[in-house]
Amino acid sequence: MGSASKNTFLPLDPVSFADESKTVVDFIADYYENIEKYPVQSTVEPGYLSARLPDSAPYCPEPLEDILKDVSDCIIPGLTHWQSPNFFAYFQANASTAGFLGEMLCSGFNVVGFNWISSPAATELESIVMDWMGKLLMLPSSFLFAGTGGGVLHGSTCEAAVCVLAATRDKALEELGGWEHMTKLVVYASDQTHFTFQKAAKLVGIPPSNFRLIETSFSTGFSMSPEIVRSAIEDDIKSGFVPLLLCATIGTTPTGAVDPIRELGKVAMEFKVWLHIDAAYAGSACICPEFRHYLDGVELANSISMNPHKWFLTNMDCCCLWIKEPNLLTDSLSSDPEILRNKASRSKEVVDYKDWQIALSRRFRALKLWIVIRRHGLANLMYHIRNDIAMAKCFEAFVRKDERFEMVVPRKFALVCFRLKPKAEEEDEGRELNRKLVEAINSSGRAFMSHAVAGGIYVIRCAIGTTLTQQHHVDDLWKLVQEKAQTLLINN
Amino acid sequence: MGSASKNTFLPLDPVSFADESKTVVDFIADYYENIEKYPVQSTVEPGYLSARLPDSAPYCPEPLEDILKDVSDCIIPGLTHWQSPNFFAYFQANASTAGFLGEMLCSGFNVVGFNWISSPAATELESIVMDWMGKLLMLPSSFLFAGTGGGVLHGSTCEAAVCVLAATRDKALEELGGWEHMTKLVVYASDQTHFTFQKAAKLVGIPPSNFRLIETSFSTGFSMSPEIVRSAIEDDIKSGFVPLLLCATIGTTPTGAVDPIRELGKVAMEFKVWLHIDAAYAGSACICPEFRHYLDGVELANSISMNPHKWFLTNMDCCCLWIKEPNLLTDSLSSDPEILRNKASRSKEVVDYKDWQIALSRRFRALKLWIVIRRHGLANLMYHIRNDIAMAKCFEAFVRKDERFEMVVPRKFALVCFRLKPKAEEEDEGRELNRKLVEAINSSGRAFMSHAVAGGIYVIRCAIGTTLTQQHHVDDLWKLVQEKAQTLLINN
Ligand SMILES: Cc1ncc(COP(=O)(O)O)c(C=O)c1O
Ligand SMILES: Cc1ncc(COP(=O)(O)O)c(C=O)c1O
Repeated sequence: MGSASKNTFLPLDPVSFADESKTVVDFIADYYENIEKYPVQSTVEPGYLSARLPDSAPYCPEPLEDILKDVSDCIIPGLTHWQSPNFFAYFQANASTAGFLGEMLCSGFNVVGFNWISSPAATELESIVMDWMGKLLMLPSSFLFAGTGGGVLHGSTCEAAVCVLAATRDKALEELGGWEHMTKLVVYASDQTHFTFQKAAKLVGIPPSNFRLIETSFSTGFSMSPEIVRSAIEDDIKSGFVPLLLCATIGTTPTGAVDPIRELGKVAMEFKVWLHIDAAYAGSACICPEFRHYLDGVELANSISMNPHKWFLTNMDCCCLWIKEPNLLTDSLSSDPEILRNKASRSKEVVDYKDWQIALSRRFRALKLWIVIRRHGLANLMYHIRNDIAMAKCFEAFVRKDERFEMVVPRKFALVCFRLKPKAEEEDEGRELNRKLVEAINSSGRAFMSHAVAGGIYVIRCAIGTTLTQQHHVDDLWKLVQEKAQTLLINN
Repeated sequence: MGSASKNTFLPLDPVSFADESKTVVDFIADYYENIEKYPVQSTVEPGYLSARLPDSAPYCPEPLEDILKDVSDCIIPGLTHWQSPNFFAYFQANASTAGFLGEMLCSGFNVVGFNWISSPAATELESIVMDWMGKLLMLPSSFLFAGTGGGVLHGSTCEAAVCVLAATRDKALEELGGWEHMTKLVVYASDQTHFTFQKAAKLVGIPPSNFRLIETSFSTGFSMSPEIVRSAIEDDIKSGFVPLLLCATIGTTPTGAVDPIRELGKVAMEFKVWLHIDAAYAGSACICPEFRHYLDGVELANSISMNPHKWFLTNMDCCCLWIKEPNLLTDSLSSDPEILRNKASRSKEVVDYKDWQIALSRRFRALKLWIVIRRHGLANLMYHIRNDIAMAKCFEAFVRKDERFEMVVPRKFALVCFRLKPKAEEEDEGRELNRKLVEAINSSGRAFMSHAVAGGIYVIRCAIGTTLTQQHHVDDLWKLVQEKAQTLLINN
C-alpha cells in the first residue's frame, strides 16, 4: 500500500469505516475490561515517548493494526487512567457508554453549527437540552429559553467565564463611556475559587491587581463571607473602582465548600455587581432534591455554569452556561460577516451560537448530553450521584473510625478531605507526612489521589465518583491508605 | 427498566459498551451510505425541533433504539450535511475514518491532560505530532520543539488568536509599564481577514477602534499590501499608538487570497510588530511542494496557525498553533495552583499544556491528528489535497467555458469564486441575480454553496473538498448551476 492512488485512498468509505470503527470499539472495551491492571498514575519518565516514536511523519500509509499496537505499547503506558475505578484525584471526568455514543454521533455527522442555518438541529437540540438540564436543576425560568434567558454548551468553565466577563465588561465600559475605564473594573472571588476565573479575568484585560481574592477560613468551612465581600466592594467604590463581577462557587475544588448564594446575591444586587455561580463539580448533585438547597438564591444570580463532563457522564468536553440576559452575551460576542449572512439570522428568530461563545466553529455537543439524559433518565442519574455520595460517606466513616486520621473539613458531596493527624512536634503540621502518604499511595499504582492546601493545612483529597468505582474499590482504597500510613508511621 | 438500581445502572459496562457502540457505528456507516439522499441544506423551519421533542427530561431510562429512531426522524432532517459530497459551502470540515478512530480513542480514554503528570502520553504525543506536522509544512526549526519553539493543539483559530494576542499584549504592557496602556495597542489585519481575529482582539481587551482593517482591492487579488501596512503603522506610531500584532492570511475566507508573507514579515520586523499567520484553510495544501512557496518568509513570523479540521481529515475540532517563543505564551497564561503542583512541573522539564491555552481541561486531540497522518501517510495526504485542487480546476474550466459566467478572482487552492456576468443595465452589478442563483441551487437540495462580497462584488463560492466529493459530483454540480442559471436568465 505504498503509493498514493484513487484506489487505495478512500478515507470515508462506509464499509471500511464500520470495520475499522468496530475494531477500535473492541479495543476500547478491552481497555475498560483491563483498566484495573494498569498503574493508575502513569509511571513513565519525561521524554519517554520521543524515544519510542519516529521524529517525523511517515510517507506511506500504515495499517490500523500497527497503529493500535503502538497505542497499546506506547500510549497506554503513558496514560494516567482517569477512567480507572481507582482514580480518586482532582475531580473525576466521567466517561459513559451514553456519552461515548453521543461523541460518536457528533464526530460522525461532523456538522459545524456556528449559526442556525449551518445545521438547525445542532442549535435547536442544544437550546432544548439546555432547558432540560436547567429544569433538572430547577433553575428559575429567567435562565431558560422557555422563560426569558437561555443556555449554551461550552467546552470548559474558563471559556464560559471569558464570555461572561467580556459581556459584563463591555456593558460596564459602555456605561462608563469607553475602553480607557478598563483599569477600574474589579472582579471578586474567594481564595478557594478555581484559578480559571483569575485567568479568564486577565484574558479579557482586567488587570490582575483588580482581582480581589476574598479570604476564607477554616471557621466557615472555607465558604465566602458576604460581609467581607460587602466591605471589599465598599472599599473599592470609595477608591474609585467599579465592581464588576462576583464569582460564587458551589463545591470548590480544594474542599468542596459552598458559598452562600442567597446572601452573596443580596450584596451583588445592592451594588449592581454581576453574580456568576460556578457549580462545575457539584452542580450535578443539585438534580437530587436533597442537594437542591445549595442553589437557593440562584434567582439572584446573573449567570451560572456547571460541567457535565465531570460528574454527569458526558465525556469531555461539556460545560453548561445559563444566562439571564443572553443579549448581553451576544452584544459583546456577535459578528455579522457577509459570508455567514442569511435570512434566518436576519429574522432574529433563531439562535446563532457563534455569538454565545469564543470560537466560530463548534462541535455538536448537545447530542451527548441529550443521549446521557435520555439513556439514564433522572432516576438513574440521581442514583449515580447518590451512590457516589454514599461511597464517600463510607470512606469518611473509615477515616473517622481510625484515630490516626482526621477529617480536615466536613465532607461535602463525594469529596473527602482528610489527613494523618500531625504529631505535636511536627513543625509543618503534618504537611511532609501527608505529602509522603499521598506519594506512597500514588506510586503504588493501586490508586491515585491528589492534595490541596486549605487554611495552611495540607489536605489529602479523595474524590469519589469515576463511572466504574464501586464499593469494593473504596474498601480497597482505605486498606491501601492504612497500609501506607502504617509503614510511614513506623519509619518516621 | 423503569426504576433506578445497581442492576440496571451500569453506565460503562464493557460488554454493553461494545454492543451499543457497534450499533451506533452501523448507524453512522448507514448515514454515510445514504448521505446523498438528503437535501444538503436542511429544509426545516425555525423551531421545528421543539415541536417534536418533549420540553423536559425523562424520569426513566429510555432504550437506545428509541433514541436512534429520534436521531433519524428528528435530528437528521435538521442537519445541514457537511459530509455530503455535494456540500460546497463555507470551507469543508473533513471527517474521515482515521479522524473518527482518533476521536473514539480520545473519548474512550477520556483523560484530561491539563499538565504533563495528568497523562504524560497526551502531552508528549501532542508535542511530537506538532513537530511532525510542522515538518510536513517545512516550518523552520524555530517553530518546533526539536528547535527552539513549540506547538499546541487548540479547538479553533479564535482560541489560538486569543492566546497569541494575550501573550503579545502582556509583553507589550510590561514594556510600557502597566495595564493603563492597553488603549494604545493596535492590531492590523486586512478587510479579508477572518472576523475571528477582530473578535479575539476585542476579547483580550483591545478597543475595537484600535483594530485596523487594511483595505485590499481587486487589483492585488485581495491580498494585503505591505506598503499600506507600513504607512498605517507609521501613522499610528506618530499618533502615539503602539503597533502590537499583524495578522496575515494564507487562503482568506472570501476568496482564498494569500498575503505576501515575506514582505509583510519585513515590515513587521522593522517595527517590532508580532506577525501571526492564519493558514486555517490553505495551510493543509502547503504539505505539497508545489504550494509550499506560499509559506516563504514564514521564518519572519512569530506564530502560525492552521486547522486540520478543515482540509486535513481530522474531524472537528483541531487547530495547530506554532509559536517561536512559547515562554511568552506561558508567561501570559500560566497558573500554579497548589492542587496541581507536582514534581514534574516543578522540574520545568515537561510541557504543561494548560499554560498554552485558555481552558484548564483539554481533550486528547493529538491522537486523531497522529492517526490521520499515519493511516494515510504524506503520500495519500498530498493525493487528497491535489485531487481536490484538480476538481476545482475542472470546475474553473467549466466556468470559463460558459460565457454567461465569469471567474471573479483567479482560483486559489480548491476554492472557485465565480458569478453570472451582470448585464450592463443591472444597477447592483449582478448581486441580486447571483443571490437568486445561490438560493435556487441551495433550495434544490442537490448542492450547497455559499457567497462572499469582495471589492463590492457578490461572489458565489464553490469550495471543493469534502472527504466524499468525487469528480462526478463536480460534474453534476456544474449541470445544476447551468440549469438554475438558465431558468433565472429566462425569467429575468
Ligand atoms: C470548581 C471548579 N471550577 C472550574 C473548574 C474548571 O474546570 P474545566 O476546565 O474542566 O471546565 C474546575 C475543575 O476542576 C472546578 O473544580
Ligand atoms: C481563514 C480562516 N481563518 C479562521 C477561521 C476560523 O475557523 P475555526 O473557528 O474553525 O477555527 C476560518 C474559518 O472558516 C477561516 O477560513
